[in-house]
Amino acid sequence: MSLLCVGSVALDSVETPRGAVDRVLGGSAVYFSAAATVLHPVQLVGVIGDDYPLDQLDFLSDRGADLSGIEQLAGKSFFWAGRYHSDINVRDTLDTQLGVFADFQPKIPERFKDSRFVFLGNIDPALQHDVLDQVVSPEVVACDTMNFWIEGAREQLLALLERVRILIVNDEEIRQLAGESNLRRAASWVQEKGPEIVIVKKGEHGAVLFADDWMFFVPGYPLNEVFDPTGAGDAFAGGFMGHLASCGKVTSEALRRAMVYGSALGSFACEQFSVDRLRALSPVNVVDRVEEFRRLTFFDTPPTPEKHV
Amino acid sequence: MSLLCVGSVALDSVETPRGAVDRVLGGSAVYFSAAATVLHPVQLVGVIGDDYPLDQLDFLSDRGADLSGIEQLAGKSFFWAGRYHSDINVRDTLDTQLGVFADFQPKIPERFKDSRFVFLGNIDPALQHDVLDQVVSPEVVACDTMNFWIEGAREQLLALLERVRILIVNDEEIRQLAGESNLRRAASWVQEKGPEIVIVKKGEHGAVLFADDWMFFVPGYPLNEVFDPTGAGDAFAGGFMGHLASCGKVTSEALRRAMVYGSALGSFACEQFSVDRLRALSPVNVVDRVEEFRRLTFFDTPPTPEKHV
Repeated sequence: MSLLCVGSVALDSVETPRGAVDRVLGGSAVYFSAAATVLHPVQLVGVIGDDYPLDQLDFLSDRGADLSGIEQLAGKSFFWAGRYHSDINVRDTLDTQLGVFADFQPKIPERFKDSRFVFLGNIDPALQHDVLDQVVSPEVVACDTMNFWIEGAREQLLALLERVRILIVNDEEIRQLAGESNLRRAASWVQEKGPEIVIVKKGEHGAVLFADDWMFFVPGYPLNEVFDPTGAGDAFAGGFMGHLASCGKVTSEALRRAMVYGSALGSFACEQFSVDRLRALSPVNVVDRVEEFRRLTFFDTPPTPEKHV
Repeated sequence: MSLLCVGSVALDSVETPRGAVDRVLGGSAVYFSAAATVLHPVQLVGVIGDDYPLDQLDFLSDRGADLSGIEQLAGKSFFWAGRYHSDINVRDTLDTQLGVFADFQPKIPERFKDSRFVFLGNIDPALQHDVLDQVVSPEVVACDTMNFWIEGAREQLLALLERVRILIVNDEEIRQLAGESNLRRAASWVQEKGPEIVIVKKGEHGAVLFADDWMFFVPGYPLNEVFDPTGAGDAFAGGFMGHLASCGKVTSEALRRAMVYGSALGSFACEQFSVDRLRALSPVNVVDRVEEFRRLTFFDTPPTPEKHV
């Protein structure tokens, strides 16, 4: 099943306690695609400046990604610089330069318009609407967003939720969106606005999926070292949507497995700078880690109540 | 298998966004026993003052607990008062009065001394040593501790770890104990000091067990409302040890299930003030929730790698 991703294609400069990198591959669409393409081909739509090292995205094409939706404009690419603290869950943004991303108008190539699975990365909800106006009745639309849009473009975001089947956000974001600190109640609030499925990413604490009458929880993989958490959330979304698209249909079994694939890809993303670990992954690496997740969470059927009475 | 618990037997005054209660049942040994006795009888050792409503512990005796190790002294019982914020994960301690607990010298009744399973609640490591000096070669010793002892009685605590098979602490505590923010590395540090099994409680984020060459993760049950989280960690320990004792031996299968029983009992503890919900529980309620945990985390075997190649 075709899988379309629209989001940022950026250059990142990142400092962590383990080192620093300058102007390396980044952006939500790049992390998403670097994760998803291990499992399934991706159609990528984004914008870059004339400074972007486009050849560094060849590994995505090699995995079957279609990059013809990346528009190159005169000017600078979206640039982000950040520094992580010794507590790797805390970071400071040092610099953000939108460059050509400021005028991003997603143009969905003709042959992408019948995509069945669509992921709307964290961009202006107005642009997320634009994308949905261009695609023809996709089966699954998933979207991400962030605090900036929840505050600044709330009405457009709420209107978007009516057009979205799966919302993928982090715990802070859903609390802010729903005005509710309890995640289960916050998810119910979102579901009333449209999305049938709500996925809350909790960083090192894993992720939880809320469906109509069931929930699924996947832990964060207990890494010995979090090298660089940048893009882990987008890699989660890539693993999740990549697995769903490879299944071709949305069943509760596929959604459960997709959550585990998401957490697996998110964990790999943290193991090196930029998309370095994701670029080096083979499908077997992913399946091995998914199997580790099974061992991490599996317990056998409890004894029947009678045994305790 | 006999299960001995030594810890505080207290009176708590608690305020949460949902209400307030004054001088209700509390203390680590009470929460532990209120949880464990749903699964397995407990031998309780602690100290109370002459103000303690001992008859309110009858529900524990009714479940087979042996309370003859509770010593009653002239004076006031251990008293704790706290207030939770609208973010229920944050609380202020308003008052702590040690009362007769200040002179607590655990005396293990003769018939408790051959207990096979021992839980050392969060008390002075010197007293935890005293308990172990009195019991005769228990099969499983598990202990809890807190920041106060990690700072103030570090040497005695480290010596205790050599005598303990299972350490059960929260994430802040293990980070402080090991001087290491990564939980997996912190657990390895602890394991080098003695305990074969390290369990890290992460509140709403669940708990993780580190064994020699495997790990197990259980989520926090996604409650619609956390009414009062007081004692949830002790209820976790009670569910964990209660299940282990009922199994009678420590296998990886039993440990995995025990983690789920722990998380189940911990979640029940949060549903009402004090031990009110734990007191009302039947074994069937617990088995039902354990089954919910299975549905919350179970996913079927992933497709073989070939399917993705």
